[in-house]
Formats: sequence, structure tokens, C-alpha cells
Amino acid sequence: MFYTVEILGTIAFTISGVLVAMKMRMDLFGILIIAFVTSVGGGTLRDLLIGNSPVFWMVDMMYTYVILVSALFAIIFRNKLNYLRTSLFLFDTIGIGLFTVIGIEKGLSIELHPFICIALGTMTASFGGVIRDILCNEIPIIFRKEIYATACILGGVVYFILREFPIDDNWVFIISGLVVILARLLAVKFKIALPTVYSNTLD
Amino acid sequence: MFYTVEILGTIAFTISGVLVAMKMRMDLFGILIIAFVTSVGGGTLRDLLIGNSPVFWMVDMMYTYVILVSALFAIIFRNKLNYLRTSLFLFDTIGIGLFTVIGIEKGLSIELHPFICIALGTMTASFGGVIRDILCNEIPIIFRKEIYATACILGGVVYFILREFPIDDNWVFIISGLVVILARLLAVKFKIALPTVYSNTLD
Amino acid sequence: MFYTVEILGTIAFTISGVLVAMKMRMDLFGILIIAFVTSVGGGTLRDLLIGNSPVFWMVDMMYTYVILVSALFAIIFRNKLNYLRTSLFLFDTIGIGLFTVIGIEKGLSIELHPFICIALGTMTASFGGVIRDILCNEIPIIFRKEIYATACILGGVVYFILREFPIDDNWVFIISGLVVILARLLAVKFKIALPTVYSNTLD
Repeated sequence: MFYTVEILGTIAFTISGVLVAMKMRMDLFGILIIAFVTSVGGGTLRDLLIGNSPVFWMVDMMYTYVILVSALFAIIFRNKLNYLRTSLFLFDTIGIGLFTVIGIEKGLSIELHPFICIALGTMTASFGGVIRDILCNEIPIIFRKEIYATACILGGVVYFILREFPIDDNWVFIISGLVVILARLLAVKFKIALPTVYSNTLD
Repeated sequence: MFYTVEILGTIAFTISGVLVAMKMRMDLFGILIIAFVTSVGGGTLRDLLIGNSPVFWMVDMMYTYVILVSALFAIIFRNKLNYLRTSLFLFDTIGIGLFTVIGIEKGLSIELHPFICIALGTMTASFGGVIRDILCNEIPIIFRKEIYATACILGGVVYFILREFPIDDNWVFIISGLVVILARLLAVKFKIALPTVYSNTLD
Repeated sequence: MFYTVEILGTIAFTISGVLVAMKMRMDLFGILIIAFVTSVGGGTLRDLLIGNSPVFWMVDMMYTYVILVSALFAIIFRNKLNYLRTSLFLFDTIGIGLFTVIGIEKGLSIELHPFICIALGTMTASFGGVIRDILCNEIPIIFRKEIYATACILGGVVYFILREFPIDDNWVFIISGLVVILARLLAVKFKIALPTVYSNTLD
């Protein structure tokens, strides 16, 4: 079941990459690359930092196939994607929830500190979008007005709180993933954002 | 012989880095760094992703020496480089062909899927230019109007087709490298580019 | 004692990250991330390139704690940081000196060539600032007008010269770190910069 959810998340991330790349008027190759890095960038950074090589998408071809097919789908039906807007947002949010918990568990499996595990989870879920924005020469949106990463961190905290209780591991996984999803949905619905901080006394 | 070709490719990549960095009016140190990353960036990403560490240029000093000497050469003779324009383009194209096949074979040596090997080859040949453009704060040119990477992919496909036939490994190496070179030369000569894709219905 | 110096350097790098991120009007999360990458980015690149994983800040929680506390401090007292300007510059400079020598010794411990060790030291000291500038969508300042990296390289050269003499290892460490610090202080005081190179004949 988790594998199915991971495919949905991969599809959503891929399509979000295609959309940004098309807006930048990239060529077909550029679009595919941006789709790919948006989709696997977070997990790749995670694998590099913990020394898991070759990185995950090099040894499981599922990712490559899913990304190619869904990127081509998005390019062909680019004028119809508006109808899928809500589904895509949901897939994307579900993907974030899942990727966060996957990242946390990868960190736990090599006995890293909970803080570091949460950081790994947040990276897995959000770094693909950061690379996408850097390659498209924009300040990553995540640094400016998104509750995105905050939702991942919240889910991560819940994950480690739940582990203190005698709860089945699968439930810990599912509940904390749902917390990420719910936090993001509520934040978007009620337009919650972190405050920006600005200092006038420094030039 | 391959080693000689690799040196030519390294020289061409280095000088292309120097030229871009000088256009950005960087200082001497900035120019050397951009020259270095343009030259070894692709192979470094490849080595990181497959877990080959320390990365290649840390254990074979040839790269460092060739880069330093050719970067200084390019800086000193910066007003005469126009005369070398055709040679540089040829070296660059030969470098791409060679680096693509080297990347593919590194992937094969750890038994990765052909698609992934082709991706590694393409990265080896093209990612240096991507980092160069990111460091110079431009949208990587490769995503916008280059047949560059497409030539690498084409050569990679030929590589794996040839391997199905009873052909000597060296010839597979040489022929697929030449395919990359030829595809790029023809694309530049006839101004072939991938189509860009743009959707008007999405904001 | 070195550990204390490392903490001072980490604090200075963190605060420099916070200041840049606040100027870009990032949100709280963005500020923390920029602070983090500014602080540990250089050492992370070094660890990735030499294959030291999990990277250093994942296995020693000191860095995370120091960064979190000093970033929050900088955010809260953002309107008072002017009073600390000289101290911060000093901490930053000391951090560069220390991080350079740490990077060199990491390279030596796996028997890399002196040139590569010096490159590792320079990266450790300066790459955090490069990532900070890329994430903030600016051409890294280090490529344009800083003697920063040149000071690291100078210290590195002194390191390897001193090693030829019968001097205690600790003194080699301290003296070459001081050379970096002194070179930077003198360069800033006398506004020394590397020349930029520009060619008019190339378009």
C-alpha cells in the first residue's frame, strides 16, 4: 500500500515540475530534467548525506518509469491540467506526508538523533522543490511563504512523541504522515504562513 | 589514447568555464573555480550518486594540473581566443562524446539499469555546464535551447544497441562516442533544437 | 580548545546566514535553513566529496544546537546586531582559519595530494557562503570581490611548507590557521582584492 502512495506522490511531484518548467519555456529535455529532480531531488540529497549509494532511484526503476510516463502525460495534456488541479494538490500533499515519514525512518535505521531524522524527513519531502526553483533561477518558494516544511517538522515531532507510547510501528507511520497532510491542508485553507522577519537597522 | 582525448575534453570544458566567468567580470579566483566546476562537475555528480569516493579528480592529479594550466592559458591569451574558437568547439564536442561513454561504463561497472547508465553518461557530459550556469546565476542554457544532452542520450541508446551484437567493447565505446559527436555537430550545423512546450491555460 | 573555536566559528557563520536571509525577507523557516547551510554547507560538501558519511553534523549534535540557539538569538536581537558587528567579523574570520585547517587535515587523513587537501580546506571554509548566496539567488560574493578564499589557500600553502620542518603538529595547525586569519584581516583593512579579468574581444 505504501508503494502505491509513493507512486501517487511521485506523479504529483513530477507534474509540479513539468508545470514550472513549461512556465519557463524550457525545451522538452529541460522539462523532463526538472520533472525528474523535483520528484527525486529530496530523496537523493537524503541518500547522499547518509551515504546510501547508489541513490534510491538508481536501483529501483519504478521511479524512472513513473516519472517519464507522468511527465509525458502532463506535457500532452498541458491544456487540460486545470481540471486536475485539486487532485494534483491532494497527491502532492499526500506525497509530502509519505516522503517525510520515509525520510525519518531512513535516519532511524542508521540510529541518527531524532532532530536529524526530522531534518532528513523534511528534506526528502521538500528539497526536490528547492532544486526545481534553483534550476529555474528563482528564490526557492519554500523559503518565502510556505507552511510546507513546517508541516513536515510538525509530523516529525508527532512521530517521535508517538514512538514513546506502546503503539504499533505502522500506526506511528500512518498517523504522523496524516499529521503532515492535515497541517498542510489546514494551512492552505486558512492561509496560515510563518511570519517573515526583517531588520531595518542593518544595511 | 582515451586518456589523451580526456585531456582535450578537460581543456575545452575549462576554457568554456573561463570564458563565461570572465563575461561575469569575476576575479581570478572566481574564474579558476568556475573553470574547475565546469570541467569536473559532471563527473563529480556521477561519482557522488554512485558512491565512488573520494571523487575521481581527488585521486588523479592530472585533472587539477590540466585545468590550472589551461585556465591560466585562457586568461593570459583572453584577447586571442577567437582564433581558437573552432578548435575549442571541436574539443568540447569530443569531450562530450567521451565523457558520455565514460559515464555509461561507470554505471555498467556497478550493474545499473541501461536507462540509469545513460542518465549517468549524460550527467557526466553536461552537468558541469549546468553548475557553471547556476553559479553565474543564469538559467542553465542546456534546459533552454541545446541539443547537447539529446546527443548524449542518442549516443547512449546506440551504445546499448551495439552491445547486443558481437562487437568488440572498444568499438562499442568508440562508435557510440562518435554518434554523440556527430549528432552535436549536425545539430549545431543545421540549427536543430528540441521544441519548447508552453501552456497558456495555466497561470 | 579547538572545539571552543569551532563553536565560535559556527556561531559567526550562522549569524551571517541569518542576516542575509532577513535581508531577503524570508520567513522564519527559511532563515533557519539559510543559517544552517551557511554554517555547515562547506563541511558537508567536503564530507560528500571524500565519502565521509553520514556527514559530520548528523553524528555530532553540537552543531545543530549551536546553530538553533545562535539563529534564534540573532533573530530576536536583530535590531541590536550592529553592536556586535566587529565581534561577528572576528568570529567569522577565526572560523575561516579553523575550518580551513580542519578541511586540510581531513584530506590528509585519507592521504590525498596537498593541492586537493588545500582545496578541501578552502571549500570547508567558504562553500557555506556560496550555497547561501545561490539559495538567495545571488552570484556568490566570493567569486566577485573577496580575498576570503585566497586567504584559505595561503594558509594551506603555509601548512604544507611547515610540515616539511620538524615542527610539532599542533603548531603547524595553529600557525597556518593564524595565517588565514591574518591574511583576511590585512586584506579587509587595506582593501586588497584580486584583479578581475575581462576580455573585450569575445561577445
